[in-house]
Amino acid sequence: MSAVDPAVARVVDAGGAQVPALLAAVEARLAVAAGGHGAVLATHAGSTIAAGGKRLRPLLVLIVAGGEGDAVVRAAAAVELVHAATLVHDDVLDAAPLRRGRPTVVATAGRLLATATGDLLFSRAFAELAENGDADQVRALSRASSALARGELLQREDAFAAGVSVERYLTRCELKTAALLEAACELGALVAGREVEPLAAFGRRIGLAFQLLDDVLDVSGPAERTGKHRGTDLLDGTVTLPFILARLDVDPRTIDTPERAEEVCDRIAATGALEESRARALAIVGEAKSELPDLPQRRALELVADGVVERYS
Amino acid sequence: MSAVDPAVARVVDAGGAQVPALLAAVEARLAVAAGGHGAVLATHAGSTIAAGGKRLRPLLVLIVAGGEGDAVVRAAAAVELVHAATLVHDDVLDAAPLRRGRPTVVATAGRLLATATGDLLFSRAFAELAENGDADQVRALSRASSALARGELLQREDAFAAGVSVERYLTRCELKTAALLEAACELGALVAGREVEPLAAFGRRIGLAFQLLDDVLDVSGPAERTGKHRGTDLLDGTVTLPFILARLDVDPRTIDTPERAEEVCDRIAATGALEESRARALAIVGEAKSELPDLPQRRALELVADGVVERYS
Repeated sequence: MSAVDPAVARVVDAGGAQVPALLAAVEARLAVAAGGHGAVLATHAGSTIAAGGKRLRPLLVLIVAGGEGDAVVRAAAAVELVHAATLVHDDVLDAAPLRRGRPTVVATAGRLLATATGDLLFSRAFAELAENGDADQVRALSRASSALARGELLQREDAFAAGVSVERYLTRCELKTAALLEAACELGALVAGREVEPLAAFGRRIGLAFQLLDDVLDVSGPAERTGKHRGTDLLDGTVTLPFILARLDVDPRTIDTPERAEEVCDRIAATGALEESRARALAIVGEAKSELPDLPQRRALELVADGVVERYS
Repeated sequence: MSAVDPAVARVVDAGGAQVPALLAAVEARLAVAAGGHGAVLATHAGSTIAAGGKRLRPLLVLIVAGGEGDAVVRAAAAVELVHAATLVHDDVLDAAPLRRGRPTVVATAGRLLATATGDLLFSRAFAELAENGDADQVRALSRASSALARGELLQREDAFAAGVSVERYLTRCELKTAALLEAACELGALVAGREVEPLAAFGRRIGLAFQLLDDVLDVSGPAERTGKHRGTDLLDGTVTLPFILARLDVDPRTIDTPERAEEVCDRIAATGALEESRARALAIVGEAKSELPDLPQRRALELVADGVVERYS
């Protein structure tokens, strides 16, 4: 992510003049955290970090904190390290060949190296954050990190299950995705000594909307956009909101070919479930914005929220 | 581990009257940490914890701290949670069917659940320790946890390599094993406000000796004792001190059957490399004991050191 990223440029316009320099400092910090643990780890942890991504979580930490200094940079790096660790482990479990268009650690180096790389990134995250000397920050990150593991499990537990409730689906999204964005906002608030809960709620809502929109995209396609066929979640047995709301008489276990998945996607789309899912996500984003406390960085946070929606429009 | 464990009984005799009650409190804390994250996780994390083990790391924390209270119990639980997390991930990588005579998480529940269980145990460890509100403690644990990941990688990097040096082998042992025992002693010292380094050095040395003796046992057998064939490390490509010191003209890549491994074990034994390895371990234990600072719990720590040796005699 460079300083000319449009999302960041808008944050700068909204008063976040310090953000590009801080993001650069986060990148430097991530490179140090991923390096220096032996040549092999440096290669794989380093390539994971260097592969980039949106850096949405660090961006939230920086904007919520609204200030400069080592503590905010460390917190932003820590949350991204947990995110990277999770991605590496997810790729191990999925035996995924590519992530962000690059070969995954598991594909290039095997399961052992990838698992160890993920473990290392996890522990570097806590080492990084511990430097801030605030147990509340460590607690926030470890709570999110437990939630991520629990979310993965819940997804597994519900795989190919026909009767997943909306409530249970939302719980899974909170664990899998919202918890870490919530933690990013918590960390920003804690570093800056702001009231935590209203900002944590913003992160949680944005995260939930993010996951809902991602799940809509998996059904709506098009493949050129997502880089994969429609219905990959369904093929994996991951029952998402569009499928639940569509109430088709389809047993998820029967979705066993890409063609069948595409067909079920078409049937879901025909019910209006995509629009309903999307409307739910937009409502959550609206709530996230309207419930924001009146801070100087309110406008910048609203722009981040809009960015999440735009990404999927 | 029950209060009648002979190692604990001796510690009690040496003045550690509070240790059995504290160990029981650690067990309760571990059960809580492993539970309460959804039914599936509770089952697997819980069974991992319940499967027990020697609880050597918590014991070190308790003895080094030498006092009571929530902080010492939390620190002891945290270090055992990291240990358990590592075991679960190691079993995933080895696709191990059994650990301590019980089916592993990966064998009963698959790789995904086992990886998530390990991640959860990791994050619960840091959550637990963060409650103590001391960044130095979190730093010590995350340093050890990074070392464990790096040790796994180093072992992989050196797999089937003929030219592993003694120094490189010792580095691997420090990372894989000694770092966490060192962290246990560090945590105990930090909780009690004692000088850290002399006690950390004790843990490091005991850990190193522990790994050396374990590696000797893999070559010396007998199988009835270890529950596995001699030379399982060699079969995995793990080059250990006895093999290095034996200087056989054997390429590790040629050790590809249990029979061949047993044969190489015999040849190693014939060189005296087992005695030399064992002597090195005992010298390290001696150093660990003699360099101990003069504390009331010195005797109890010496008994733990002796216990590590006895376990392998």
